[in-house]
Amino acid sequence: MSKFDVCGIGNAIVDILSFTEEAFLAEQGIAKGSMQLVDETRSAQLYEKLGQTTECSGGSVANSLAGLAGLGARTCFIGKVKGDQLGTIFTHDMRSVGVHFDMPPVTEGPATANCLVMVTPDAQRTMATFLGACGSVSEADIDPFLVERSAITYIEGYLWDAEHAKAAIRKAIAMARGVRKRVAFTLSDTFCVERHRADFLQLINEEIDILFANEAEIKALYQTDDFDAALAKLRGACPVAAITRSEKGSVVLTKDDVEEVPAASVPEVVDTTGAGDLYASGFLFGIVQEWDLPYCAVLGNRCAGKIIGQLGARSNEPLAQLVA
Amino acid sequence: MSKFDVCGIGNAIVDILSFTEEAFLAEQGIAKGSMQLVDETRSAQLYEKLGQTTECSGGSVANSLAGLAGLGARTCFIGKVKGDQLGTIFTHDMRSVGVHFDMPPVTEGPATANCLVMVTPDAQRTMATFLGACGSVSEADIDPFLVERSAITYIEGYLWDAEHAKAAIRKAIAMARGVRKRVAFTLSDTFCVERHRADFLQLINEEIDILFANEAEIKALYQTDDFDAALAKLRGACPVAAITRSEKGSVVLTKDDVEEVPAASVPEVVDTTGAGDLYASGFLFGIVQEWDLPYCAVLGNRCAGKIIGQLGARSNEPLAQLVA
Repeated sequence: MSKFDVCGIGNAIVDILSFTEEAFLAEQGIAKGSMQLVDETRSAQLYEKLGQTTECSGGSVANSLAGLAGLGARTCFIGKVKGDQLGTIFTHDMRSVGVHFDMPPVTEGPATANCLVMVTPDAQRTMATFLGACGSVSEADIDPFLVERSAITYIEGYLWDAEHAKAAIRKAIAMARGVRKRVAFTLSDTFCVERHRADFLQLINEEIDILFANEAEIKALYQTDDFDAALAKLRGACPVAAITRSEKGSVVLTKDDVEEVPAASVPEVVDTTGAGDLYASGFLFGIVQEWDLPYCAVLGNRCAGKIIGQLGARSNEPLAQLVA
Repeated sequence: MSKFDVCGIGNAIVDILSFTEEAFLAEQGIAKGSMQLVDETRSAQLYEKLGQTTECSGGSVANSLAGLAGLGARTCFIGKVKGDQLGTIFTHDMRSVGVHFDMPPVTEGPATANCLVMVTPDAQRTMATFLGACGSVSEADIDPFLVERSAITYIEGYLWDAEHAKAAIRKAIAMARGVRKRVAFTLSDTFCVERHRADFLQLINEEIDILFANEAEIKALYQTDDFDAALAKLRGACPVAAITRSEKGSVVLTKDDVEEVPAASVPEVVDTTGAGDLYASGFLFGIVQEWDLPYCAVLGNRCAGKIIGQLGARSNEPLAQLVA
């Protein structure tokens, strides 16, 4: 038996959330719904223009792990913070929900990463990320004590944007596969797909066991506007793919099967931040429990539905009650 | 005409909010509903035991000013942060809503203050505050450019706990009164009243024009369990007193009159953090507009009702729509 159900490797980020108007995004030249990378100066300039903020730990895979831990899974995290106040907050929030996270914070170089999350009146989120200390993740950080002892290693596409992360991820994948453990991957963002399409295609075709993406991301991946055409290309490329479609729920794809699973009902959508991340929490929890795939998707949809009813991507309420 | 409607003097604090069970407070020996002062070590120990957190700027008078600014008042703030990440967040959040705040952050000594806000399932908040950089507020910080040009100077009782603040407050009060401006004051907390009763009584009897308190605080002030007896003692001691009573609304007291104003309706109470602070926002906004006192209390109740429907004491939605 594995010591951990899921080892997550991702960017360690504190989200700075604020409500903004669409006009503000246009003024700033930011594509709505996207994640844009910004340097420290641009991050500070943009921050200065935002209204009242709320801070909450974030990071895509980190959010998924926090969700998984809340569901009852055993998880560990590989990611880099600096030893500053935001790094302390991120570390606390991971450990407080039971995620094993003991990488020492870096003492030099840029600050802990932050993500300016701008939530428009339609509850959509648009992000500007300063990667900061995340840029220092390297091969040396891929700890076999964690990766080899986890049933699933879960990796975010966003990592491809961090300086030394590509080699680190290649090492982690080889390490996991070397001991016959599974590898899960999320495409993260359409712009991220545009930047790294060739690498992502190679990973999906050769190394990934479970793929997470949303509709726009797989269309971007296969450079088509036709969802069914994208699905057709994806089918068979990797053993399991779970594709989220917002209010249309999600689609689970295997070589032999395509299952559509309707979205969970949501009383009021406040902020879509973390919807995809928490979908992955629910889905992976089901995988760990060896549920049939459609049930994995049902729990994924429920977790996603839960998180969009609040501000931020870390649940204020226990998720375990969603498992039923 | 004054340049500012309200000059606030208070502790500059970032709140670290988390949901906890009542049993946790008991284990930690913390009186539910209170604000307890803790040193840096105790703050860190307690933080480590908390679950998932959300960070949001706080501080009692600072919250009131943010609310006032959101209602459309011209406000300025006197308080101390350090030049660290939490200090940057606090400063941003004040300025972003339009509060004039340009005191330079301190560069040495303890970190920016934080308040661990523990929200129990009944939505009550219990607080452990590390005052940090707030301890350095001194007479030199009382800027006549701000105090003398504000129609009202608003001061929190909590300040009495900060090292050099007492002399600073005395100076601010004398400065405001010297130019015939009004002074408003909040008792802040029952334990704070216990610590500083003699000073608070003297202030109320001699220096304060508008007093804010809740029911428990005026009972503590006059050492009685009888609300009406406390009201009777307070009447005539200061020109205007606005006493909040949670779901019973508020009572406005003058020499000649006692008016009870029912609470605003609240769909769901999530977190009572900031209820009293936002009551003061609404009430002072009415005072600035020269409304009759019961109308001031109506807006106070509405602002309080608004803030307890969300997590944290800074409104995620514009408050101006409550003025009608």
